Amino acid sequence: MPYKVAVRSFKTLSYIGSYKKMRDRPLAFYCAAILGAGYAAYSQHKQNKAEMKEIIQLKNYMAEPITPISELEKNQDDMKTQMELLIMRIQAEFCRALEKEEDEAWEDEKTTDDFDFDNDVFLPSPESKFKVDRWKRKEGGGGITCVLQDGRVFEKAGVNISVVSGILPPPAVQQMKSRGKNFENKELPFFAAGVSAVIHPRNPMVPTIHFNYRYFEVQDKNEVHWWFGGGTDLTPYYLNEDDAVHFHRTLKQACDEHDPTYYDKFKKWCDDYFVISHRGERRGVGGIFFDDVDYPDQQSAFKFVTSCAEAVIPSYIPLVQKHADAGYGYHERQWQLLRRGRYVEFNLIYDRGTKFGLHTPGARYESILMSLPLNAKWEYMHDPKPNSPEEKLMKVLKEPRDWLNFQQSKNTST
Amino acid sequence: MPYKVAVRSFKTLSYIGSYKKMRDRPLAFYCAAILGAGYAAYSQHKQNKAEMKEIIQLKNYMAEPITPISELEKNQDDMKTQMELLIMRIQAEFCRALEKEEDEAWEDEKTTDDFDFDNDVFLPSPESKFKVDRWKRKEGGGGITCVLQDGRVFEKAGVNISVVSGILPPPAVQQMKSRGKNFENKELPFFAAGVSAVIHPRNPMVPTIHFNYRYFEVQDKNEVHWWFGGGTDLTPYYLNEDDAVHFHRTLKQACDEHDPTYYDKFKKWCDDYFVISHRGERRGVGGIFFDDVDYPDQQSAFKFVTSCAEAVIPSYIPLVQKHADAGYGYHERQWQLLRRGRYVEFNLIYDRGTKFGLHTPGARYESILMSLPLNAKWEYMHDPKPNSPEEKLMKVLKEPRDWLNFQQSKNTST
Repeated sequence: MPYKVAVRSFKTLSYIGSYKKMRDRPLAFYCAAILGAGYAAYSQHKQNKAEMKEIIQLKNYMAEPITPISELEKNQDDMKTQMELLIMRIQAEFCRALEKEEDEAWEDEKTTDDFDFDNDVFLPSPESKFKVDRWKRKEGGGGITCVLQDGRVFEKAGVNISVVSGILPPPAVQQMKSRGKNFENKELPFFAAGVSAVIHPRNPMVPTIHFNYRYFEVQDKNEVHWWFGGGTDLTPYYLNEDDAVHFHRTLKQACDEHDPTYYDKFKKWCDDYFVISHRGERRGVGGIFFDDVDYPDQQSAFKFVTSCAEAVIPSYIPLVQKHADAGYGYHERQWQLLRRGRYVEFNLIYDRGTKFGLHTPGARYESILMSLPLNAKWEYMHDPKPNSPEEKLMKVLKEPRDWLNFQQSKNTST
Repeated sequence: MPYKVAVRSFKTLSYIGSYKKMRDRPLAFYCAAILGAGYAAYSQHKQNKAEMKEIIQLKNYMAEPITPISELEKNQDDMKTQMELLIMRIQAEFCRALEKEEDEAWEDEKTTDDFDFDNDVFLPSPESKFKVDRWKRKEGGGGITCVLQDGRVFEKAGVNISVVSGILPPPAVQQMKSRGKNFENKELPFFAAGVSAVIHPRNPMVPTIHFNYRYFEVQDKNEVHWWFGGGTDLTPYYLNEDDAVHFHRTLKQACDEHDPTYYDKFKKWCDDYFVISHRGERRGVGGIFFDDVDYPDQQSAFKFVTSCAEAVIPSYIPLVQKHADAGYGYHERQWQLLRRGRYVEFNLIYDRGTKFGLHTPGARYESILMSLPLNAKWEYMHDPKPNSPEEKLMKVLKEPRDWLNFQQSKNTST
C-alpha cells in the first residue's frame, strides 16, 4: 500500500513536473506551506515512510486541507481521511493541468513587458492562474474553491472541493429516504466530502467538461451508512465523434478495471440524468454517472472512484490541446453562448446537487454557482439550419449514441 | 357599460394613434384582419353597438383571439371571454407602445436606403417590430407569443398571452391544495387565461419590467372556483429613486381606485415573492404582486385587475423615454449583464410560474423562457465597490424601501 501510494504521488509529480516555479498564491497557500514544513519535520521525527505521501502532497495542494492535519494523521485509515486526501490531490492535479494549458498559450504571446529582470524569469500572466478561496462553514467543515476566469484557453474554470459535516435536517433526510435509503432518526449526523469541477473553454471547438466525485456518511442509531457517487460528462458545442469516442473509451477503461458491467450501467445512468426535460434534449454527449455505490466493499468502491477521478485528465486534456487553436468566428461563438444558456437551464432547473445546495441554509452559493458560464445567451425560437454542424450536434443530444460500439461498427465497415 | 367600453377603446386607439401604417405582419395577422372584416360586417348587420368594441379591437390585436370569435360573442358576459379580450388588448397596447419607442429611435437614424420610393414612405426597421407566434396547445387552447429581439431600445422584449383549458393533473391539484384551496376531485377541469411580459432594454439606465395578470377557473363537483392573480415589478440596474417612486405611485393609484388597503398589502407580497433566497437579495425594487383574489366579487376583481394591467404603460414607458439615450460604457454594460444573470437565477430557481410551466407536459417552453435575457453573465465572487452606484442598488435589493412614504419624508425634510 505505501509503495502504491508513493508511485501514485510520483505519477502526480511527474504530471505537474513542468510546474516548478513558486507561484503567485494568497496567504492561505503560504500558511499551508509553513504548516506543511512543520508537519514534514514532525513526520520525519516519526521516521514513518508512509507519511511521505502527505509531505509530498501538502506542498502541491491548492490550500491547506479542511480537516486539521493532526486529525487526518490520527485517522489515516478512516475513509473520511482517504477521501479528503483524494479530492485534495484531484483538485490540485486538475487545476495545474489546466494552468499548464494557459501557460503554454501565454508562452506564444509573452513580451519583454512580462520579464522580471530582477529574478531573470518571465512572470506568468495573472489571468492564467486559479484564484484560491479556502472557506469555512459555520455548521462544520468547509471547502476550497478554485476559479480561473477570463483566461486565454478557459473562459471560466471552477474546481471545488468541500468537506462538510453536521446534522442533516429532516427535509434532506426525507430526500434521501425517497431515494431508497431507510433511516429511523429524523435528524442525522452526516459527513460529505467531494470534488466537483466545470470547465468552460473559450474556443467553441473545445468541449465543456464537468465531473464530481463524492463520499457520504450518515449515522443512524448505531449504524453508519456510507456510499459514493459521482460522474464525468462532456458537453461539446460542435460534435467531434473522435473526441466523444476518446472520452468514453477513457472512462470505460477506468470502469473496466473494477467491474465489467459498470461502464454500460453508468453510461446509461448519465444519459438519463443530464436531460433538459422541457427541451427533450441531453446536455451533452454523456459520460458516466452513478450514485449510492456502497458495493462490493468500502475499499473497492473507493478504488473505483479513485480510478474514475484519475481518468478526468487523460479523458479531457488531449481534447483541449487538439482544439484550443482551432479557427472560429462570430457564428460559432453565438452558438456556444446559446448552448451555455442550455447549460444554465440544466444546472438551475434540474441538477439535484445545485438545487440541494442552494436550498441548504448557509450554503456557499458562490461555490455552487461557479459552474455557471461567464457568458450565456437566450434567443427566442433559435433553430439550427438543416444539415448544419449545429444540427448535427442536436441530433446526438436528442438521441444518445453508444459511442464505443459505434466506433467498432465504423472500424468494421471501413 | 358600452359607453365606458367605447371610451376605453378610444383611449387605446389614441394611445396607438401614431401607429397608422400597415405593418409587416405574418400570415396569421392577415387572417385575423380578414376574419375581423367579416366579423365587422356580421356585427353591423346585427346593429348592436356594444359589439363595436370587438370590431375596433380585432384589427388592433397582435393576432386572432385563441377562442373562436363566434364563441366569444356567444359568451360575452362570461368572465372567460372578458378576460381573454382584456389580455388581447393589453398585449396589443403594450407591444405597440414598445414598438413606438423603437420607431422613434429609428427615426433618428434612418437614411434614404430605408425609403420606399414606390410608396413614398420610409420602411420601418424590421428589428423594431414584434415577431408574432400564434400557437395551439394539443390539450386545449393556445397562446400568442410576441417577441422583439435585438432592437435599438429593447435587447429582448417578450409579451405573451395564453388561454388554456383541460384537466389539471393530480400534482398540480396538490400544489393548489397546499396553497389553501380545497378540492375534492383528484383531476379537475380548469381554464386559465393570462398575459405576461418581460422587457429587457439595451441601455443599463433603463430598468427591466415584468408583469403578469391571470384568471383561473377550476371545476370541482358542481362548483366553479375562480380567482385572479398578477403583479407588476421593476428591476433597475442603476437605482434612480424618482423612477422607483413614479413606478410605485402609478401602481398605487391603480390599486386605490378599488381598495385603499390593496397597495400596501400587495407591495409587501411583491417584496416577499421576488427574492433570490440564496443571495439574500430581491430581484428589483418591487411593485405589486397578488394571488387568490376572489373578492369582493367577480366583476369588481376583474375591474381591479383591469386597472393594474392598464397601469403598466404609464408606470414604465416614461422611464424608457427618460433614460433610453443616457450615456453608458463597458463598465455599466458588464454590471447589467451580471444583474441579468441574477434575473435568470430567480426565474429558473424560484419563480412558481416558470417552474409550474416547465414541468407541465406539452408546455410551450419557448414562450415560458422568453422571459430570459438575450445575454447574461456570471462572474465568480463579484462584489460592487464601496460607495459605487452598483452598491447603492444592492443596498435597496437587500432592504426593500417604502418608496411612497420615503418620498413623503424626503419632501417634508426639504
